[in-house]
Amino acid sequence: MTTTVKDMLDTFPADLGGVDREKLVRCIEACLACAQACTACADACLSEEMVGELTTCIRTDADCADVCAATAAVLSRRTGDDTRVTRAVLEACATVCGVCAGECERHADRHDHCRVCAEACRRCERACNDLIASLA
Amino acid sequence: MTTTVKDMLDTFPADLGGVDREKLVRCIEACLACAQACTACADACLSEEMVGELTTCIRTDADCADVCAATAAVLSRRTGDDTRVTRAVLEACATVCGVCAGECERHADRHDHCRVCAEACRRCERACNDLIASLA
Amino acid sequence: MTTTVKDMLDTFPADLGGVDREKLVRCIEACLACAQACTACADACLSEEMVGELTTCIRTDADCADVCAATAAVLSRRTGDDTRVTRAVLEACATVCGVCAGECERHADRHDHCRVCAEACRRCERACNDLIASLA
Amino acid sequence: MTTTVKDMLDTFPADLGGVDREKLVRCIEACLACAQACTACADACLSEEMVGELTTCIRTDADCADVCAATAAVLSRRTGDDTRVTRAVLEACATVCGVCAGECERHADRHDHCRVCAEACRRCERACNDLIASLA
Repeated sequence: MTTTVKDMLDTFPADLGGVDREKLVRCIEACLACAQACTACADACLSEEMVGELTTCIRTDADCADVCAATAAVLSRRTGDDTRVTRAVLEACATVCGVCAGECERHADRHDHCRVCAEACRRCERACNDLIASLA
Repeated sequence: MTTTVKDMLDTFPADLGGVDREKLVRCIEACLACAQACTACADACLSEEMVGELTTCIRTDADCADVCAATAAVLSRRTGDDTRVTRAVLEACATVCGVCAGECERHADRHDHCRVCAEACRRCERACNDLIASLA
Repeated sequence: MTTTVKDMLDTFPADLGGVDREKLVRCIEACLACAQACTACADACLSEEMVGELTTCIRTDADCADVCAATAAVLSRRTGDDTRVTRAVLEACATVCGVCAGECERHADRHDHCRVCAEACRRCERACNDLIASLA
Repeated sequence: MTTTVKDMLDTFPADLGGVDREKLVRCIEACLACAQACTACADACLSEEMVGELTTCIRTDADCADVCAATAAVLSRRTGDDTRVTRAVLEACATVCGVCAGECERHADRHDHCRVCAEACRRCERACNDLIASLA
C-alpha cells in the first residue's frame, strides 16, 4: 500500500514543534492499518460458524477501529498542536489496542484473521507508546 | 431532537453490568451533541473574516469531534464491556473536551458559535467525568 | 436529548445558500440518531443467543452507522457548500438507511432493538429524501 | 506503509461473492490514503498565511476525509454484502473525491500539500470507479 503520510507531513508549511517526525509517521500509519484490520476482523468473525464465541472479539475490534481512526486523524493535524490532547488520545489508543490484541490473540490459533489483526494491534500499541515516550 | 439512545439501551438483551444507566445515556447524548457542535463550529470559524485568528480553534474542534464520535460509539456498545477501554476512552474524551472548551471560550464573546460550542464541550466533559466517577 | 444542531446553524456567520434550514436540521439530527441506533443495534444483536441469524443485520447496521455519521458531518459544514457533494452523500445515506431498515424490519417482531433501529433508519431515509427534494 | 488490507481479505472465512479481489484491495487502500491526505491537507491549509483563500479547500478536504473513511470501512466488510450499499457508497465517494481533487488542483502550484492531496483524491476516484465497473 502506498500512503502519503510522510509526503503530507513533509509539505506541512509550519514548524512541527518538538514531535519526532519518524515516530509520528509510523504511528499514523499503524493507526490506519489497525483500524482497517479491526473492521475486517470483526466482519470475518461474523462469517465464522462459531460467531457466538467471538462476540467479545467483534465488539472490541469495533471499539479499536473507532479509536484508531480518531487517533490517526488527531495525529495528522499539526496546527496549534496541544500535547495534552496528543498524549490523552495516544494513551487511550495504546490501551484499547492492547486490550484488542489480547482478545484477538486468544483466537489466533484458530482464526487467521484474529492472528493478523492481533499483530496489527500490537504494532499500533507499540507505535503509540513510542510516540508518547518521545513527547516532551 | 429525538434520539433513541435511551430506547436502544432499554432494549439491550443482556445485563448492563455495573454501569449507571442514566449517566451512560447522558454521556452518549453529550458526546453526539458535542461532536456535531464541534464540526459545525470549525466550519463556522472558516466562514469568519478573521479565520486567521481561529486556526487553533478549528483544529481543536476537529479533534474534539473525532474523539467525541468515537467515544459515543464505544459507549453505545455493551457486549463484553471492558472497564479498561471505557475508562481510557472517557479520560481522553474529557481531556479533549476540556481543551476545546477552553479554546472556544477565548472566542465566545465575539463568536456565538464558539459560545454554543464551548457549552457543549463543557457538558460533555462533565458527563464523561461523571461516568468515570461511577465506574467500579 | 438536547442537541445544539439548530443553535449551531443559527450562529453560522454567512449565508446558508438555498438550503431549507428546517429540513437540514431535521436531517442532521436524524443522521446522528440513526448512527447511534445502528451501533447499539449491532451490539445488541451480538448479545442475542441467536447471533448466528443476525450477522447480516450486524454488518448492515455497522455500514449504516458509518455512512450516517459521515453524512451528519458533511451536512454540518456550510462553508463553500457544493450541491454535488451534498446530493451524492444524501443519496448514499438514503440508500443505506433503506437497506438497513429493511434488514432490521425482518427481525423487528423478535428483537425490540431491531424495531427501534428500523424506525430510526426509516426516519433518516425520509429526512435525506426530503432534503434531496429541496435542493436546487 | 505496511497495511494488512490484502492479508485480512485473504483470511476472510467465507466466499467473497463476485467482487474483484484486487480492485477491492486497491480501493480500500486508496480510501485510507485519501482520508489521511485530506485530513492533513485541511490542517496544512490552516497553517498557510493565506488561509482565507483556502476555506473551501479545507471544507471539501474534511468532507472527503469523512466519506473516504466510511467507504474504506464499508468495503472492508464482506459478510452479507449488498451491492446496493456498495454501489451507493462508491458512487458518493467517487463524486466527493472528484470535487475535492478539483478544488486541491486549483491550489496545487502554490501549495505542495494540495498537489499531493489532489493526486490521492484522483487515485481514490479512479479506484472507486474501477470497482463500480467491476460490480455485477
